[in-house]
Amino acid sequence: MHKLGIGVLGVGEMGKRHAENLRRLVPEARLAAVADVAADRAREVAAELEVEHSFRSFDAMLEHKDVDAVLIATPDKFHARAICEAAAAGKDILCEKPLATDLPQAHEALAAVAKAGVRLQIGFMRRYDPAYEAAMRRVEVGEIGEPVIFKSVGRDKDVPPLAAYQSNVNGMVFYNNTIHDFDLARWLMRDEVTDVHAYTTVAIRPEIAQYGDVVASVVNLKYQRGAIGNVESYVQAIYGYDVRTEIVGSKGSIFVGSVDKMPATFLTAGGGVHVLADHFLSRFADAYLAEVRDFVHNMLNDRPPRVSGEDGLRALAIAVAAENSHLQGKSCMVATEQSGQRRDSQTVSS
Amino acid sequence: MHKLGIGVLGVGEMGKRHAENLRRLVPEARLAAVADVAADRAREVAAELEVEHSFRSFDAMLEHKDVDAVLIATPDKFHARAICEAAAAGKDILCEKPLATDLPQAHEALAAVAKAGVRLQIGFMRRYDPAYEAAMRRVEVGEIGEPVIFKSVGRDKDVPPLAAYQSNVNGMVFYNNTIHDFDLARWLMRDEVTDVHAYTTVAIRPEIAQYGDVVASVVNLKYQRGAIGNVESYVQAIYGYDVRTEIVGSKGSIFVGSVDKMPATFLTAGGGVHVLADHFLSRFADAYLAEVRDFVHNMLNDRPPRVSGEDGLRALAIAVAAENSHLQGKSCMVATEQSGQRRDSQTVSS
Amino acid sequence: MHKLGIGVLGVGEMGKRHAENLRRLVPEARLAAVADVAADRAREVAAELEVEHSFRSFDAMLEHKDVDAVLIATPDKFHARAICEAAAAGKDILCEKPLATDLPQAHEALAAVAKAGVRLQIGFMRRYDPAYEAAMRRVEVGEIGEPVIFKSVGRDKDVPPLAAYQSNVNGMVFYNNTIHDFDLARWLMRDEVTDVHAYTTVAIRPEIAQYGDVVASVVNLKYQRGAIGNVESYVQAIYGYDVRTEIVGSKGSIFVGSVDKMPATFLTAGGGVHVLADHFLSRFADAYLAEVRDFVHNMLNDRPPRVSGEDGLRALAIAVAAENSHLQGKSCMVATEQSGQRRDSQTVSS
Amino acid sequence: MHKLGIGVLGVGEMGKRHAENLRRLVPEARLAAVADVAADRAREVAAELEVEHSFRSFDAMLEHKDVDAVLIATPDKFHARAICEAAAAGKDILCEKPLATDLPQAHEALAAVAKAGVRLQIGFMRRYDPAYEAAMRRVEVGEIGEPVIFKSVGRDKDVPPLAAYQSNVNGMVFYNNTIHDFDLARWLMRDEVTDVHAYTTVAIRPEIAQYGDVVASVVNLKYQRGAIGNVESYVQAIYGYDVRTEIVGSKGSIFVGSVDKMPATFLTAGGGVHVLADHFLSRFADAYLAEVRDFVHNMLNDRPPRVSGEDGLRALAIAVAAENSHLQGKSCMVATEQSGQRRDSQTVSS
Repeated sequence: MHKLGIGVLGVGEMGKRHAENLRRLVPEARLAAVADVAADRAREVAAELEVEHSFRSFDAMLEHKDVDAVLIATPDKFHARAICEAAAAGKDILCEKPLATDLPQAHEALAAVAKAGVRLQIGFMRRYDPAYEAAMRRVEVGEIGEPVIFKSVGRDKDVPPLAAYQSNVNGMVFYNNTIHDFDLARWLMRDEVTDVHAYTTVAIRPEIAQYGDVVASVVNLKYQRGAIGNVESYVQAIYGYDVRTEIVGSKGSIFVGSVDKMPATFLTAGGGVHVLADHFLSRFADAYLAEVRDFVHNMLNDRPPRVSGEDGLRALAIAVAAENSHLQGKSCMVATEQSGQRRDSQTVSS
Repeated sequence: MHKLGIGVLGVGEMGKRHAENLRRLVPEARLAAVADVAADRAREVAAELEVEHSFRSFDAMLEHKDVDAVLIATPDKFHARAICEAAAAGKDILCEKPLATDLPQAHEALAAVAKAGVRLQIGFMRRYDPAYEAAMRRVEVGEIGEPVIFKSVGRDKDVPPLAAYQSNVNGMVFYNNTIHDFDLARWLMRDEVTDVHAYTTVAIRPEIAQYGDVVASVVNLKYQRGAIGNVESYVQAIYGYDVRTEIVGSKGSIFVGSVDKMPATFLTAGGGVHVLADHFLSRFADAYLAEVRDFVHNMLNDRPPRVSGEDGLRALAIAVAAENSHLQGKSCMVATEQSGQRRDSQTVSS
Repeated sequence: MHKLGIGVLGVGEMGKRHAENLRRLVPEARLAAVADVAADRAREVAAELEVEHSFRSFDAMLEHKDVDAVLIATPDKFHARAICEAAAAGKDILCEKPLATDLPQAHEALAAVAKAGVRLQIGFMRRYDPAYEAAMRRVEVGEIGEPVIFKSVGRDKDVPPLAAYQSNVNGMVFYNNTIHDFDLARWLMRDEVTDVHAYTTVAIRPEIAQYGDVVASVVNLKYQRGAIGNVESYVQAIYGYDVRTEIVGSKGSIFVGSVDKMPATFLTAGGGVHVLADHFLSRFADAYLAEVRDFVHNMLNDRPPRVSGEDGLRALAIAVAAENSHLQGKSCMVATEQSGQRRDSQTVSS
Repeated sequence: MHKLGIGVLGVGEMGKRHAENLRRLVPEARLAAVADVAADRAREVAAELEVEHSFRSFDAMLEHKDVDAVLIATPDKFHARAICEAAAAGKDILCEKPLATDLPQAHEALAAVAKAGVRLQIGFMRRYDPAYEAAMRRVEVGEIGEPVIFKSVGRDKDVPPLAAYQSNVNGMVFYNNTIHDFDLARWLMRDEVTDVHAYTTVAIRPEIAQYGDVVASVVNLKYQRGAIGNVESYVQAIYGYDVRTEIVGSKGSIFVGSVDKMPATFLTAGGGVHVLADHFLSRFADAYLAEVRDFVHNMLNDRPPRVSGEDGLRALAIAVAAENSHLQGKSCMVATEQSGQRRDSQTVSS
């Protein structure tokens, strides 16, 4: 069997999971190398996964002959640059979300990909989750009629360490967390978001305001064909990892999500107790695996990737508009144009 | 036992339910009379419930010696005037929501009540639902810490007849449906909403736009102490009557609501099927009963009503701001002042 | 409207609920009198419900001209005798389950009813529960194909006081609790149980063994047409009141029941918590009301009652066979014949 | 890292899954070889998993120097013989359930293991399922007090092909399906089952009676310390794969299981629809993996296996007693003694 040789850039929690999946669970892939600016970490992961090569430098990995494609799992703000480098080296790319942390870099990355004639997939893995996939199939066959309202909730369990805000390698919550919901907002509704309005809060953690981030947000959405929506994010829900989405239509509604971790109920005089989900790597374990399998299969068979760079750009544009709404205190238009970023995100109607 | 003599004004679907409850299930009450502009309907309900007196005129009922208090269940836009008349006649009042359909009338009604020295309760019956009550108790003891996000969904099952829009006796969806959620938004969060932003749609029923109403809405909320929220309404969900609310806090979260009508699951090769809730009179049957019982009990014992006229005013002010946001395409401040209605609902920050 | 005059015999917890329903919620009924050997209790309930007459003696109540029918809610072991007396007085009867606590008395009661030409309904109120009714409708239209397995669980919440065992007015658990499931076993499967096998335990409360009762039981069922089943009972589940039933068929399955008391979930770091159901009077409040309404309506309209004396007899026969299995340590045949009680309940196959 | 070399015997659906897990997901294992009487199948699986050696003969695989341990996944009735051969060759063994299909062979296998001084684990993988493990932890810390009732349901989705009955390589349902529940019955209750009583049915498929098998069964259990239980099995539930277990105690209860396949609900005018679980390989995917990982880890570290041959024997003894009860129509004692199989399984009490 011909296999796709892959190098993974960035082997922190997320990149290591991808590397494990590629090494063990994707028969069509061969994990050729891993790279990380933390050379020790790269070496350790390579040893643990029995991968021949580990690098400190992305360039060195890109030059290796066994690397046909790369998976980018660096901190968010390095995504765009890594895409440019990989494209220049002629490699196909699976890049974790977001495509970039601002629109100019996003356009630069897409231009590099286009120029090099390589293919780029963005890591919106929820599209590969069995429940979200089942939802999409039902939307597509018209089971809920015309979509009217999109709703999504994304809550993380643990209080992020202050260092995560200080380093700011991932941008504010809209770019790192909510962007999943922004992508679902487009994909499941099969329509484009044109305007957003955001309220945010730092109420229970005022010290993070100085880093430009928030604890929670609600973002109203307006769609091109008239539908509406709302996306809520909360980064320290304490009780669990809670991701839920609804697509409400003219004939019915679809609800995806569960806060339960396992099918077990404990009944005592104090009530019935369920154990709650706690982490995205367990909730979406199957989705992450299906994602890399699909990417590898499509690359080997000269097919386009399932989630395009354009998808990455459009989700990013919603995040940018949401941040602008947060900063300016008014609703903002969603615009993808590079040069017009500031101008295009002006208030819609005031 | 001394009983509170009550007259019910308006015996359509809602008023008739109240009359039935008062007649049969509230030992402390005596249903003395019913009145309805449709004199036939008043007579029929009186006969069915074995009530001695039925009236076509509210005035006539108010003059009756056995009527100590009135329950107002007319179309929304007559609420304020009925309150004024009942107050002038010295009767205590339980009035269905909303208090009024605009702020000037609301202030007029409250002034009449104050002047007459009578008591007024607004019919936010969800506060009496066992699940919402349990939620409130847990909020009060601090179980979820500091409230951070309020979420609520209210979806009605059936497509409203066009005549309902044409007659416009209830005002747009914010005044008749969403106002329940606006009340919960204040009550459960124990805080005041200061700003709102609304997106609305008529996408799947454009012909109602001419009546100033919408099919669905999402309303972002901003609270005085920094919390945020969102309320969604949809008037023709088709699949069922679906009311759900979440209060998300710094230590945990409370979720109220279920779309299931009964505890039964039907498992076939096509999947597991649940029968869904279909109407507010069945979902909130216990709450409506508890509401009138509590009102009657408090009146008999010279206690203040549990849901005040002020509560009615404040929920109305949120609805007014939401409508303004819908009309003006920008976020609006919530203001209760009579004279300043237009001025106070200006855009918050632009 | 002509109304059915009813006297309630026995106004303990259960009888009082029936009296309240009849007094307030059944327009076709007139609660004419209550009777109880505890004359004070009868007087108090009569006062509270504003019923004109209260009696210490059943005979006295039966002689009253306004009493067209009686509802019997005495302790179980007085049911059969009360039925005989009511029948002799020419009254129609709604009797709480069980029909009797042994087969000879059951036959005596049925003979008295037949001789007097009155009508008798047995209080298997679960047949009136909306979820059980929905299940039955789906069974009847063949949705699950041929029924193969019947399963039922009945768990009470509180530890019964020792006095309840000492007085033994209700017979062992099979006659007072499990008999509901035995009735469902016949009704929902539309077939007759021919054999049973019971294991029982007093493990966590050995002191009740001396009263001939048990803490928990599992009863295997064998049906005439080949289906099988199992019924579990547990009288001190502590965590809640938990009644669940499944009908498993060749094409699908129906599950009825929920341990949740209300639609509310409390999410904290310790897990997701549900408040649990705690009492049959709340779980089956609607069923008890529908039961008396239906009885009254059928009596007034000269229709047969929905749950017959024969139904009472057949459920009792299963309970008798289950007790015999418990006593004899082997499976037993179900037999309804009066004279042959001992002989017919012999071991099936050994 | 030192790795455990493993050979898999039998690479049908189950054995192939084990081989895949060992090859890809168990870093401490090296899948050295596969064997199957269907040599083609062995070759294909070896090719697909890139395993160097494939054999038609178990003996040949046992002689291979890289094979330190074997995983046996043949049809049930060959388990015991394979264990004997593997033991004689000095290999540690993970054998799918059941240990054997009768007690004499079971004892023979255990004797061979003892004589050879090798270790044997039986494949009761449910003990490794996260929900069952969580249940066991709560039982162990006393959360539900003293266990009183054990309940378990095991339903397979698809109608087994007639050929499966004709070949009879797996024994009747008790040995192949219900034995999982019999193992849970011991493990979760931390007690031994002493007596059983079974009712069975072939009602909807009478043609399988000639093969000594049944479509459904209910088995009552009696425990040494006084608890009771019931296990239901149904081999053609059509609607889905449905495994549920309850452990009911003096202070609370634990419920494990869900019939839902994924966290998605589809709400339409016809009701709320859930997609149902359909296969044990998906429901217990994690458990199968955890099982082989734990076995491999314990073997490498000279620890005893977590599920012993004795566990296999005791679960088998319950299945044997259940079959005897089915055949003899009476309750039967559970006995593990080889020579006394017939004698020990006599009726308990008649």
